[in-house]
Amino acid sequence: MEFGITFFPTIGPAEKKAGEYYDECLQLAGLADELDLAHVRTVEHYFFSYGGYSPDPVVFLTAVAARTTRVRLGTSAVIPAFSHPIKLAAKLAMLDNLSHGRLDVGFGRAFLPDEFTAFGVDMDESHVRFQEGIAACKLLWSEENVTWSGTYHSFGPVTLLPRPVQEPHPPVFVTTARSVDSCVTAGRAGHNLQMVGAILSPEQIQERISAFRKAWVDGGREPGTEQIHLSFPAYLAESRAEAFEAGRYDDGKNGAAIGAAVRSWSKTRSSAYPGYDKLADQSLRPDFAAKVGENKVLAGTPDDVAGQIEQLQDWFGDDITLSLSVHSGQLPAEMAARSMRLLATLDI
Amino acid sequence: MEFGITFFPTIGPAEKKAGEYYDECLQLAGLADELDLAHVRTVEHYFFSYGGYSPDPVVFLTAVAARTTRVRLGTSAVIPAFSHPIKLAAKLAMLDNLSHGRLDVGFGRAFLPDEFTAFGVDMDESHVRFQEGIAACKLLWSEENVTWSGTYHSFGPVTLLPRPVQEPHPPVFVTTARSVDSCVTAGRAGHNLQMVGAILSPEQIQERISAFRKAWVDGGREPGTEQIHLSFPAYLAESRAEAFEAGRYDDGKNGAAIGAAVRSWSKTRSSAYPGYDKLADQSLRPDFAAKVGENKVLAGTPDDVAGQIEQLQDWFGDDITLSLSVHSGQLPAEMAARSMRLLATLDI
Repeated sequence: MEFGITFFPTIGPAEKKAGEYYDECLQLAGLADELDLAHVRTVEHYFFSYGGYSPDPVVFLTAVAARTTRVRLGTSAVIPAFSHPIKLAAKLAMLDNLSHGRLDVGFGRAFLPDEFTAFGVDMDESHVRFQEGIAACKLLWSEENVTWSGTYHSFGPVTLLPRPVQEPHPPVFVTTARSVDSCVTAGRAGHNLQMVGAILSPEQIQERISAFRKAWVDGGREPGTEQIHLSFPAYLAESRAEAFEAGRYDDGKNGAAIGAAVRSWSKTRSSAYPGYDKLADQSLRPDFAAKVGENKVLAGTPDDVAGQIEQLQDWFGDDITLSLSVHSGQLPAEMAARSMRLLATLDI
Repeated sequence: MEFGITFFPTIGPAEKKAGEYYDECLQLAGLADELDLAHVRTVEHYFFSYGGYSPDPVVFLTAVAARTTRVRLGTSAVIPAFSHPIKLAAKLAMLDNLSHGRLDVGFGRAFLPDEFTAFGVDMDESHVRFQEGIAACKLLWSEENVTWSGTYHSFGPVTLLPRPVQEPHPPVFVTTARSVDSCVTAGRAGHNLQMVGAILSPEQIQERISAFRKAWVDGGREPGTEQIHLSFPAYLAESRAEAFEAGRYDDGKNGAAIGAAVRSWSKTRSSAYPGYDKLADQSLRPDFAAKVGENKVLAGTPDDVAGQIEQLQDWFGDDITLSLSVHSGQLPAEMAARSMRLLATLDI
């Protein structure tokens, strides 16, 4: 089973300067390359501790590309709703070239009301903007003299420069949070899947994976060629107590960061985001040991985590890829490096 | 007198793959760092051989930042008219952090009708979009809880993340092509100046520099703290014949690239761009030796070019900084490296 790492910062200037956090992450990205991990990914968020140190994942991944030679580079995700498709397709094509074809492009819809408000984009439009953005980028990458006439953008004929290295375009992933429908749409379109393990039950994930795999084949694609990335926080140490202590601290801080970011959901309703208004209700969050018990967080000794991964394989199959969040910035980078080194020793 | 290098690609996929060009430029950027040059800059353009390999200068400069430790990194320029100010300010702040405070931000208005058309932006709005974009970025960088209510964008209160390293913000340059007024506006606002040497006469450049310096001091700033970058193509070799042969070839190719990019000016008129409709008239271009004779291009042996630079110092003062275009991609990268090494031997 392959695994990579995702950087999801949850810190702001009061905790650690951005430059220091980036330097730490670049060291860890180098370690990921050295350990032959599958990928390095990062997010797109704004303004809040929750992801705000990563407003442009392409910029950070370009720095990763310069320090690595093997590891794949993934966005998780870029947000078409906040970008002109030409700008988005162009910078991603630059990164595909600068990394010599190591780019995976994850697209997301975004879900924080304050981000939509800042960009002056109506949340109810997010689904159409997402689909239109993906389609426009794919067309710009794979064809010349492209004319696009969409709901939110129209242009052309233009030929995007640079051309991407990977043909017809870099692998496309969609970051899908909640609905089965979006997994079916992704599979049918030949888009791979990124899911957040912690926010769904195993049964919900199984249902989405099955629907996605069926749609992938229904769309005329070879079974087994689809990619599914499942992300989890991971904390490993030689002793369980130490791993849990670190994890409990980090998890609490991450919870506070997401709490602040989703606060405006308490006064926001969008028919495009059913159920999201409950995100602001932090009382639903179970404690750390319970999360580990439910395999929503990987934590413990290498043996402990090997057992958890075995359970994930039983549930979801052994051809899924894990994307492990190891450095939110709340803990010393050395602890993330330790988690990565211990993970690399596992026979999974 | 300090000098740096500017990358202005004029090639497309038919001549050289983008990844190969980037690799060459990154090697040359490393050499610039080694030779202790003042800066590495690159442009923002789309679709055409003329600059089209550089649609996002921040992405390329991030790769440069990863391979260098001393040289400053400059955009020449980023185009606010094509970007949301939050997106632009955020990625530039990331680069300022990733480079540990080595960023200079040059802003430009853009001038190619086809770029404006593709982004659905009216050229007549370019001046207001330019001024508004600079002001919004500066505010986002230097203050928290920013509320912006402009002609084209409104947002806030938001606090940009990450915060830039340089305080209150990275040095700001404006890339000004033609008008004295824009030099005065820049000087009064405390913005530094980037000018293209080849498209103005020495008298025109002198007039703009004087107006700029006066406005800088009128704006309450210390004389001598302003920065003026003048860019020129440069071709050096041990023999004059060799330098001229290389320069003549490159200059011809660059002329053809700009000719293709400005062709649509023959059917475009914008009151915001007086005289630009004549850009498409290629018959005005003098021959290579004449350009060298007029110091619009630096070419020849180290002694030849030292003489040209002495003339530039006489005309414009010895506190201007030269920004030398050494690798459009038309010639082997080794020739650019040779030019850079020979330039570094000059006692200027």
